[in-house]
Amino acid sequence: MSRRFLALALILTLAAAAQSKPRARDLGVPFDGTPGPNNAITDVKGVEVGHTTLISGEGKLVVGKGPVRTGVTAIHPRGKASNDAVFAAWFTLNGNGEMTGTTWVEDSGFLNGPVMITNTHSVGVVRDAVIAWKVKHGGPDMEGYFWSLPVVAETWDGYLNDINGFHVRPEDAFHALDIAHTGAVEEGNVGGGTGMICNEFKGGIGTSSRVLDAKAGGYTVGVLVQCNYGARDQLRIAGINVGREIPEHTVFKEDIGSIIVIVATDAPLIPTQLKRIARKVSLGLGRNGSYSGDGSGDIFLAFSTANPGAVGPKSPHQLAMLPNDSLNPIFLATVQATEEAVINAMIAAETMKGVNDHEVIALPHDKLREVLKNHNRLAK
Amino acid sequence: MSRRFLALALILTLAAAAQSKPRARDLGVPFDGTPGPNNAITDVKGVEVGHTTLISGEGKLVVGKGPVRTGVTAIHPRGKASNDAVFAAWFTLNGNGEMTGTTWVEDSGFLNGPVMITNTHSVGVVRDAVIAWKVKHGGPDMEGYFWSLPVVAETWDGYLNDINGFHVRPEDAFHALDIAHTGAVEEGNVGGGTGMICNEFKGGIGTSSRVLDAKAGGYTVGVLVQCNYGARDQLRIAGINVGREIPEHTVFKEDIGSIIVIVATDAPLIPTQLKRIARKVSLGLGRNGSYSGDGSGDIFLAFSTANPGAVGPKSPHQLAMLPNDSLNPIFLATVQATEEAVINAMIAAETMKGVNDHEVIALPHDKLREVLKNHNRLAK
Amino acid sequence: MSRRFLALALILTLAAAAQSKPRARDLGVPFDGTPGPNNAITDVKGVEVGHTTLISGEGKLVVGKGPVRTGVTAIHPRGKASNDAVFAAWFTLNGNGEMTGTTWVEDSGFLNGPVMITNTHSVGVVRDAVIAWKVKHGGPDMEGYFWSLPVVAETWDGYLNDINGFHVRPEDAFHALDIAHTGAVEEGNVGGGTGMICNEFKGGIGTSSRVLDAKAGGYTVGVLVQCNYGARDQLRIAGINVGREIPEHTVFKEDIGSIIVIVATDAPLIPTQLKRIARKVSLGLGRNGSYSGDGSGDIFLAFSTANPGAVGPKSPHQLAMLPNDSLNPIFLATVQATEEAVINAMIAAETMKGVNDHEVIALPHDKLREVLKNHNRLAK
Amino acid sequence: MSRRFLALALILTLAAAAQSKPRARDLGVPFDGTPGPNNAITDVKGVEVGHTTLISGEGKLVVGKGPVRTGVTAIHPRGKASNDAVFAAWFTLNGNGEMTGTTWVEDSGFLNGPVMITNTHSVGVVRDAVIAWKVKHGGPDMEGYFWSLPVVAETWDGYLNDINGFHVRPEDAFHALDIAHTGAVEEGNVGGGTGMICNEFKGGIGTSSRVLDAKAGGYTVGVLVQCNYGARDQLRIAGINVGREIPEHTVFKEDIGSIIVIVATDAPLIPTQLKRIARKVSLGLGRNGSYSGDGSGDIFLAFSTANPGAVGPKSPHQLAMLPNDSLNPIFLATVQATEEAVINAMIAAETMKGVNDHEVIALPHDKLREVLKNHNRLAK
Repeated sequence: MSRRFLALALILTLAAAAQSKPRARDLGVPFDGTPGPNNAITDVKGVEVGHTTLISGEGKLVVGKGPVRTGVTAIHPRGKASNDAVFAAWFTLNGNGEMTGTTWVEDSGFLNGPVMITNTHSVGVVRDAVIAWKVKHGGPDMEGYFWSLPVVAETWDGYLNDINGFHVRPEDAFHALDIAHTGAVEEGNVGGGTGMICNEFKGGIGTSSRVLDAKAGGYTVGVLVQCNYGARDQLRIAGINVGREIPEHTVFKEDIGSIIVIVATDAPLIPTQLKRIARKVSLGLGRNGSYSGDGSGDIFLAFSTANPGAVGPKSPHQLAMLPNDSLNPIFLATVQATEEAVINAMIAAETMKGVNDHEVIALPHDKLREVLKNHNRLAK
Repeated sequence: MSRRFLALALILTLAAAAQSKPRARDLGVPFDGTPGPNNAITDVKGVEVGHTTLISGEGKLVVGKGPVRTGVTAIHPRGKASNDAVFAAWFTLNGNGEMTGTTWVEDSGFLNGPVMITNTHSVGVVRDAVIAWKVKHGGPDMEGYFWSLPVVAETWDGYLNDINGFHVRPEDAFHALDIAHTGAVEEGNVGGGTGMICNEFKGGIGTSSRVLDAKAGGYTVGVLVQCNYGARDQLRIAGINVGREIPEHTVFKEDIGSIIVIVATDAPLIPTQLKRIARKVSLGLGRNGSYSGDGSGDIFLAFSTANPGAVGPKSPHQLAMLPNDSLNPIFLATVQATEEAVINAMIAAETMKGVNDHEVIALPHDKLREVLKNHNRLAK
Repeated sequence: MSRRFLALALILTLAAAAQSKPRARDLGVPFDGTPGPNNAITDVKGVEVGHTTLISGEGKLVVGKGPVRTGVTAIHPRGKASNDAVFAAWFTLNGNGEMTGTTWVEDSGFLNGPVMITNTHSVGVVRDAVIAWKVKHGGPDMEGYFWSLPVVAETWDGYLNDINGFHVRPEDAFHALDIAHTGAVEEGNVGGGTGMICNEFKGGIGTSSRVLDAKAGGYTVGVLVQCNYGARDQLRIAGINVGREIPEHTVFKEDIGSIIVIVATDAPLIPTQLKRIARKVSLGLGRNGSYSGDGSGDIFLAFSTANPGAVGPKSPHQLAMLPNDSLNPIFLATVQATEEAVINAMIAAETMKGVNDHEVIALPHDKLREVLKNHNRLAK
Repeated sequence: MSRRFLALALILTLAAAAQSKPRARDLGVPFDGTPGPNNAITDVKGVEVGHTTLISGEGKLVVGKGPVRTGVTAIHPRGKASNDAVFAAWFTLNGNGEMTGTTWVEDSGFLNGPVMITNTHSVGVVRDAVIAWKVKHGGPDMEGYFWSLPVVAETWDGYLNDINGFHVRPEDAFHALDIAHTGAVEEGNVGGGTGMICNEFKGGIGTSSRVLDAKAGGYTVGVLVQCNYGARDQLRIAGINVGREIPEHTVFKEDIGSIIVIVATDAPLIPTQLKRIARKVSLGLGRNGSYSGDGSGDIFLAFSTANPGAVGPKSPHQLAMLPNDSLNPIFLATVQATEEAVINAMIAAETMKGVNDHEVIALPHDKLREVLKNHNRLAK
């Protein structure tokens, strides 16, 4: 029980910290495009994000005891109170990972319920917990069925976390689902991202958004990443090989991590179009230098909050759709917001010590500015 | 020139014949569901079908001279006068074949222009001919682009036809496009199906349709096949192993053919749903005993004529969509119409002699009735 | 605790019963091809199958109390002692279901560990249990990684089982993994199939196999299904519309179930080829009358036990591959064994009463024989 | 006839020029990794490349007369004399384009014959010409079939070329196939790339390669692009937004082009692995700033020249396969060589005037160096 209170206390502390912590733009990293008010996935109206962060213990690994550096992140596309599905699609750049529920997303074109992100060995418990949470919150879904196929993704945190201790419990998933909120999103060492490593710096949760100009429809595109991929020597920030100029304290010898990317938009897109959006995420990762290594689970999901009620009821209904040849600004926004969300994750994350005193350093803000300045790439 | 006149004369003759030839139902082959007035893909309003049939020469093969047993079939989803796209999707059960244009069908969700079917070695000439035909008929397409990516499919007729003689010419494609019509569709040894072989009987073009009852929306599902697949000993008609009970005059030792299946509907479906329709075609072929051999190009395309104007112009527009849980009657209709269209192709086709006096016999109607009767499967 | 003993007792009883129960062939249902000694997936050398069957309580549903009619089935491709992966691929005919782990199967071409099948709401617990079981049984997998992405599939048993009671526990998964064995496979109301319904008869687990003749390589193809799909009026057995001639005690109004199909072979196939095998499963279901309804999770996985060690270690190694144009006998065997495994599931399953006294009848053997006889389709 | 001579003369001139023209590295553009001796796709042993370049006429467009600025590029994976297939796979980043033959590449895992690249409206003529060329050069292919499904890709050159004049003829395809050679590859305004535009600079054909170190197996990865995509303001070279700093003479308002990317390697990879290689191409384009606009046909194909004879004959045969966890250096090489090949295309291409005196300028080498120098990104 006290474990839960600790988690809550940490969250509140981190949430407070989130207000004051600088983000990539604050440090002068240059990005294209116009972000929304929170520069977060929650800039897409209705989207709520909640984190359960589990941090306890230190020192030597005792499986089942800790140290624990993990958590769960929940994303409600239409808010926790809604039982309505959203059009969705997914794409895999490199498949060494898991995102449950995607077979039905692919075939139905809908995402029905929240998206959850956690560690690799806790996907199952979180998945069944989502069903239990749905059962607890009332009747069958809008499709009239009494079952569900939750979407739960993961990346691997075993370098810092006692991953084989299976510390995530159903209540941790409930908690993330229950406290999810609109507004600013906590980044870095929180939720599913707690124990993650990105380009051999401390990684975790990052987010960003873009608002299209009125001519392009004024739509918002928001991206949230759980960032756990990358080799230091490949890291590019604003096009500069920052990783090579900050070579200290590397962790791995090659790219063995993963990245989960969730793209939200209020643009009225059908699943065929959302699949294209999901695929463009790759280009944002390309800008940051990823080569998407064999051990990486690079799995992306895109959804549109437009067209409420599209999933049912049983008769043809009207929906809105943007023509394909209006998609370019959305494609570009997706690439830009992905590029920035990854950098935001590293900027927000703080140095962490985990199992067996493994330590992963945060990307040093001053050095980053210095490198960018040397290349005339500092925005301010 | 006279070759063309001959082709035209043949078409007129065949068209006349089409009126009087029995179809599978006329022979008492039992099928489920209710067909439309023509029991053809043209029961879907707007759909037009045209065949150019090329038959000339006989005896020994002289490459470039003949004998010629081939042709082109054209299907206009909204009629030849329309420049509007339809929602579409495709699926491959076995990929030893070609259907050009599918990369953009897949990614855009639209089919823009006609569907053409011809022999394997004439896909290219027909493809470029469709562009030439579009150029001739006016400006850029509704998407505002000045190029196009025609959909052209094929099966292989080299057992009867001088396929390496490349006898299909651009004018043959123009002709099929120009004479396409609504109403009854010629079946058997016509158009792209002229030289085809199905379950080692003479095959070719076949078609069928289903009309849903009012409760299911009253929609029509139409199927057209160019049928060139199958091993005799696997052929099932109405569930009965007819092929084994009519073992005479087989042609091949294994399933080396192909089948192209086009599904049309006026139900308001989005591409995600049409992809599911295309996939269900497999189940209709399963009913007829197919095992989809390695040499087979079993490629299916489904389109919906609902939602005119969905492709453009540049602003969000309204469209209609059937909920996923209303799709069952359409799935079932697809399976049923596929099952029947294949049998119709064999029933309509007539014994043909081609290159080097290769002969492929028609499915003997009387024997078929006899076999079905022996199994209490004759409808009348 | 006693619950577990009960389960075990049931299994032993059922296993004994399995010896004496007739299978479809024993009843004179005609099938093509030559089955292996067990006519089961275990005819592929190395494959082991284990079931945990959970049956307890009766009468009114009290969520969390029961009645319980569910279980877990485990399939070890190379036996439980092996830590070696197999080449594998998967395919979805209709996606309203879950099979975890498929993203990495798709991208790596390997299945690493067992295949598990359970009910829809217990996929998570079984998934994490497989990881725990692996952790308990020793070091990292052959790829050198310390994580895993288990393959767990499901169908929905909520008509007979207290599915929202989450009765499957990690120990149930361990048990199925531990007791898995070669030889005859229990069919019907066992393992994951315990509470399943097939064509509105009692369904569950079914299996079948084919042995190719020496000319085709002498390979074995084995199929195991968890059969929960189908509408009574579509059911075809041996091509005959048996469902319509046995119309009593139907359950649903449309096809809302699912089917999981696992195909094993010792033929040396690479993943590209196994994907084709998985796709051909559809044709076997087509023979049995499936139209793969919207609510169906029709998900198929195929693996090859040839090429041990193909997954590693780190240097190019030699493997065997069958040419594509030798695949026809394997395609056909897959279609045939799928057709038979589904019928075997229904023949083996017994009438079951579950939650709220819902009853689903077994396919009556005598009536089946009578119908087939009326159509001259009885083999003996 | 003289047209052909002109084409030949041009080729010889260009080939000579190719020796002396600087490439991106020569100008000091920094790239990672070690290229092969030609820094070209032909560094993969056996690969031959041939171009037919068609340039004639100037001034006002008269459809069918010109001006002509187009051509054909042929790539033989094992040299023009070989009739042996290679393992292959493909991927679409954005599907507004054509690559014929991919359905069988996908399902068989093999590429059988050359890869051709031309303009959008000449895909058909080139496709059928490849069959004619094969027919002329002897018997059935190694699979024993008498047909083929050529791979022909395209990008659109209608801004500079009389694309609706259909100027490419069968002989042009034959010519490219016949003159294909190993060694240095002509880049820029040649072959299929003649009339192409890349990031609103003159584009066309570009190539690059990487040789892995001995520890990684010493394999070679070669890339060839036909580059016709991109918006000026997105162009990044070596991570720098070069496009914005050279804003003069832009052509379009958005990204409406396309890019075909062919990846060759001698590493022993199976099709599943080659599909992953093809997908990684996206990351190279991401580095250069692509957002892969709606109008883009971004289609990639990867093949391996290892495992000669893998396609047949009819019995299991041995082949070599690299473990998945050895793929990282090949993934990275693919990303790097793609990045460089695109820049090489722009560096080699020269300012061109085409239909209606449309002019597209070459990327000015001096300005590029200046921009890179300003950002401390000049290698020499």
